[in-house]
Amino acid sequence: MTLESTFATRLNYVETSAIRELFKLLAKPGIISFAGGFPDASMFDVDGIKAATDKALAETAGAVLQYGATEGYNPLRTGISGYMATKGVTVAPDGLIVTTGSQQALDLIGKTMINEGDNVIVEAPTFLATIQCFRLYGANVIGAPIDEGGVVVDKLEALIIQHKPKLVYLIPSFGNPSGALVPTDRRKRILELAVKYKVLIVEDDPYGELYFDESPAAAAPVSMLALSDSVPGSRNWLAFAGSFSKVMSPGLRVGWLIAPPALLAKATMCKQFSDAHTSNLSQAIAANYLADGDGSRMAANLAKVRKVYAARAKTMADCLKAEFGDAIRFTKPAGGMFFWANLTGARGQSTDVAALAKAAIANNVAFVPGAPFFAHDADMSALRLSFATADEAKIRDGVARLGEAFKSI
Amino acid sequence: MTLESTFATRLNYVETSAIRELFKLLAKPGIISFAGGFPDASMFDVDGIKAATDKALAETAGAVLQYGATEGYNPLRTGISGYMATKGVTVAPDGLIVTTGSQQALDLIGKTMINEGDNVIVEAPTFLATIQCFRLYGANVIGAPIDEGGVVVDKLEALIIQHKPKLVYLIPSFGNPSGALVPTDRRKRILELAVKYKVLIVEDDPYGELYFDESPAAAAPVSMLALSDSVPGSRNWLAFAGSFSKVMSPGLRVGWLIAPPALLAKATMCKQFSDAHTSNLSQAIAANYLADGDGSRMAANLAKVRKVYAARAKTMADCLKAEFGDAIRFTKPAGGMFFWANLTGARGQSTDVAALAKAAIANNVAFVPGAPFFAHDADMSALRLSFATADEAKIRDGVARLGEAFKSI
Repeated sequence: MTLESTFATRLNYVETSAIRELFKLLAKPGIISFAGGFPDASMFDVDGIKAATDKALAETAGAVLQYGATEGYNPLRTGISGYMATKGVTVAPDGLIVTTGSQQALDLIGKTMINEGDNVIVEAPTFLATIQCFRLYGANVIGAPIDEGGVVVDKLEALIIQHKPKLVYLIPSFGNPSGALVPTDRRKRILELAVKYKVLIVEDDPYGELYFDESPAAAAPVSMLALSDSVPGSRNWLAFAGSFSKVMSPGLRVGWLIAPPALLAKATMCKQFSDAHTSNLSQAIAANYLADGDGSRMAANLAKVRKVYAARAKTMADCLKAEFGDAIRFTKPAGGMFFWANLTGARGQSTDVAALAKAAIANNVAFVPGAPFFAHDADMSALRLSFATADEAKIRDGVARLGEAFKSI
Repeated sequence: MTLESTFATRLNYVETSAIRELFKLLAKPGIISFAGGFPDASMFDVDGIKAATDKALAETAGAVLQYGATEGYNPLRTGISGYMATKGVTVAPDGLIVTTGSQQALDLIGKTMINEGDNVIVEAPTFLATIQCFRLYGANVIGAPIDEGGVVVDKLEALIIQHKPKLVYLIPSFGNPSGALVPTDRRKRILELAVKYKVLIVEDDPYGELYFDESPAAAAPVSMLALSDSVPGSRNWLAFAGSFSKVMSPGLRVGWLIAPPALLAKATMCKQFSDAHTSNLSQAIAANYLADGDGSRMAANLAKVRKVYAARAKTMADCLKAEFGDAIRFTKPAGGMFFWANLTGARGQSTDVAALAKAAIANNVAFVPGAPFFAHDADMSALRLSFATADEAKIRDGVARLGEAFKSI
């Protein structure tokens, strides 16, 4: 008998990610990467975070270095409550808990909700780490088809009726990998489904603040959580995972979970036995940064990030069209960090996207094949391209290299 | 149907801790608390941690604010490798992963190892959050009896034969709540059991550095991990959870897991889907602090902490003897943060320790009843007293108040 033979059976439900293997190749010098899911580190407001850190250690060292409450550091819970209010959501500080990144919010939902063999519906495609996270709790993950407006509601309803899922997980705003923005009417219909079929909707919203349209009025997408006021009863069937990773810093690992009280209480208990609490220093930094200039510091930095990402997205769209013409199909995203594209026509049918990824790396440019983002029935003609980390000159070069790789295979 | 009725069945295995309820009463002003499991915040080396933080943000802001590797921040993995070497343990940086506190190391072991219905052996009594953590993975938790030298090895062996456990979890150095120090010969025998019965031993070591005996030679207990070199094959059946919570700061949430390669790889995968990685800022601070003065800064602070805690332990022992005489039985701990005591004789038989806890709080002093620390068959005459956070004057006052409460019931 080996130690390995005694491992839990849940490990059989997941495999080491193909993407993880691909990422090992990215260390190659000179490579232009559209593969990552990282924000651009050069956009981090280092001075602002430094000031928030200094303040945390100067004024509250005893508290931030000591053990803290599992629910979260109260000044941050209050800060997030205020931040969510600016996004149209009413939530009291004790109506949310702080999590170690929003990844932990998903893990806590899995631990709290999923029995072995439960069905769970996600978008097809969706965030790979969510599929794996839920599978580790024994979930049978079912993909619901999407179009350029995100999940197709009629099909989602049919799947809910057919599979009676424990929960439905969605990234409605500039989803990873689709980049799609679910329109308001669909959001409302999904909330109605939650009430009608008594099924929990999990809204994951890491990208909602990264909208590009700077026109007034409703530039920012309104979250399903904010819309839940207009669909009676839906708030009782809705959980929301928030994150500062794309708007402040991912390295601090600060996210949050908003959920109905009974679910929040059990998720808190699960968190107690998962990591006791999230780094208090990280939480105090986030709280101080949120409060800096009454929110204006973060708003100013976000405005800058949106402008830069919007320009990069436009450049990538232009270059892809110029380089690939009709051989590629995509919807230019209105926010977020990703293009989701499909090879089309005869070349699309015959081209193995994984082979293209290898040829691309040989030509010093990287992207991620789309297949791993599907729980099942992968679309083999799809690819994900991130425009967040390469500047416009590199995007031009990188797409040109990609075009060369495409022609070479 | 309510949302609550759809929660996972694993939640039925745990209950909200009685201790958690007790802790809500501790906010009472003027109370002297021996109830907590916290280190004394006034012992934190705030200046040293501040310097480590400044260095992290001045020199490595881009890296620490960005996403990081699930395995941990490499300078910290190297630092922990060096730190473990000073404790007689050979482990390469890639032989360990950084965890969000050692609580997460336990959670990852649970996720990697435990199937529903698996037997797991722990000390009776043991750390409450471990019992609950393992139960959430469906473990049947079995307590092995202890004496003043920790777990009784003959009885442990009999339980291993009887129950064929998936793993055995131990806190051999100044365990929580027992305060017991397992002697070297017992440690070796336990390692032999691991090899003989092919069972994983999990050594949790948050308190090993808090030894009181300042005499030269072997003042510090030698971990089972360090001893594993002398028991052939035992390293293949041994996992070790380390923590900076008691020697640097718990609020930063930095712990680590050392385990055989196959287990470490799977625990890393589970961590990826639990919280992606531990706060990079916390990790960089820990790395810088460890490296400060080539380890001398942390060593100096630890020497101070040991001296203060040793004096508090002596005062508590003296006061308990003076106040309770033969009515209480305990072994003065040689390190750590806790006294584990039993009421004895006729009063011990008839006194409900939970009632004593309530009378104590009414008299402005708090401790924790021992019962919740048992997975089953609780010792109802036991109590846990922490001497870590109250200074000597408060310990004298608090034990006097406890004596009054005892007489009053």
